[in-house]
Amino acid sequence: MHTLIVHAHPGTRSFNATLTATARQTLEAGGHTVEISDLYADGFDPVEGPHHYPDRADEHRFAPLTEQRHASELGQLPGDVAREIDRLERADLVILQFPLWWHAQPAILKGWFDRVFVYGGLYTGSRRYDAGHFRGRRAMLSVTTGGPRRSFLPYGRGGPIERLLWPINYSLYYMGFDVLAPHLAYGVQGAGIAYREAQDFERHLAHVRHAWAERLRHIDDDRPIPFTGWDDWDDGVLAANHPQRWAS
Amino acid sequence: MHTLIVHAHPGTRSFNATLTATARQTLEAGGHTVEISDLYADGFDPVEGPHHYPDRADEHRFAPLTEQRHASELGQLPGDVAREIDRLERADLVILQFPLWWHAQPAILKGWFDRVFVYGGLYTGSRRYDAGHFRGRRAMLSVTTGGPRRSFLPYGRGGPIERLLWPINYSLYYMGFDVLAPHLAYGVQGAGIAYREAQDFERHLAHVRHAWAERLRHIDDDRPIPFTGWDDWDDGVLAANHPQRWAS
Repeated sequence: MHTLIVHAHPGTRSFNATLTATARQTLEAGGHTVEISDLYADGFDPVEGPHHYPDRADEHRFAPLTEQRHASELGQLPGDVAREIDRLERADLVILQFPLWWHAQPAILKGWFDRVFVYGGLYTGSRRYDAGHFRGRRAMLSVTTGGPRRSFLPYGRGGPIERLLWPINYSLYYMGFDVLAPHLAYGVQGAGIAYREAQDFERHLAHVRHAWAERLRHIDDDRPIPFTGWDDWDDGVLAANHPQRWAS
Repeated sequence: MHTLIVHAHPGTRSFNATLTATARQTLEAGGHTVEISDLYADGFDPVEGPHHYPDRADEHRFAPLTEQRHASELGQLPGDVAREIDRLERADLVILQFPLWWHAQPAILKGWFDRVFVYGGLYTGSRRYDAGHFRGRRAMLSVTTGGPRRSFLPYGRGGPIERLLWPINYSLYYMGFDVLAPHLAYGVQGAGIAYREAQDFERHLAHVRHAWAERLRHIDDDRPIPFTGWDDWDDGVLAANHPQRWAS
């Protein structure tokens, strides 16, 4: 198994950095190969816009999907986007490692979705969801949160974690991935904020690292989150007699 | 009433640009004042990271909240962040105008949340939600989607729009805003993709512009989305006997 870890945290000594290092060590120890896309270290530009498209399909009006399709057809995708796509094509499993900022992924990772999942090249109106480009591959989120676990329970103050991560997981499914349940590390904060002693920080970090390694050792057994797909929909809406309408 | 429109689209002739211009015209015609924060035009940097903090609280380990609090205490916030906060402080109503990209706001606007809503300065553990800094002010999303309306209905293929926008709306509420229901313009796509004739594009644009102006003329009558607040929670979780647990 070959794994791509897309890593999105600015701190080189952060919990997130440790989790990415733990994933690499654990997977390599299991005989797998690992590649890391470190968005901050690479200086990835998350802003989709005209500056990435010197040869425009429409000089008059900039529409991202129009330009993505055009650049893709001409083989003129931006270099960093082409590199990320190559990395994705090699991977059997994609892990997105990030801290939850404002109930979502950091901007640098949001822009990775905006720019790398190229319209025309990697998806079209008919080539998405369970007919998506990456079908047969697996993807999962590994997320740290500042708030404690109870805040993210169904009636928690922070909002149910499934609801917060749904737009991201659904985007991965949109591209055809089998999406595994996310791995969560709750109550992770800056060393100067939540931990009275340096050893409290280190103890929490050791606990989080252990839990993540355990999860990864058994990742082959994980079953993906079930989503509805093309056979379930009637003109874009779940068919009225579909059993899931009554189960949810 | 003074309104701040935070505008996040790279195309100067886009639907989004027209909607922002429509909002300005409509509100000014109603005797209100309007300010626009055009994130693309301003070259806003959405990436939170060490490069914004020359004078660090912790040189050893970069944690965004630690550095935000430190810079805020020293009065050394980055210039663009200080400018955005000044704009927010002047506004009675904040409108976020953006296209739905990958089930969320574009990266440039996601980074506006990551960087501008400064820990320490604008919120702390006790100064958030209905005790948040911007309580008494109103905020709302104005969103264009590529998919048609039926895709975003409760059983739609794109996922219920309320669920997609929830992380963003909840972030506004977290800062204390009274959040109005979003304004949606569905089925908006690049001129080269969805519209057979230029006049189809213009006709759709006229329809969308009209609906948005109508909404804004009556914006004073809008009631905010109800959220639970401090009095409803018991140690971070909605109290077991709270009526909303049984109503949802």
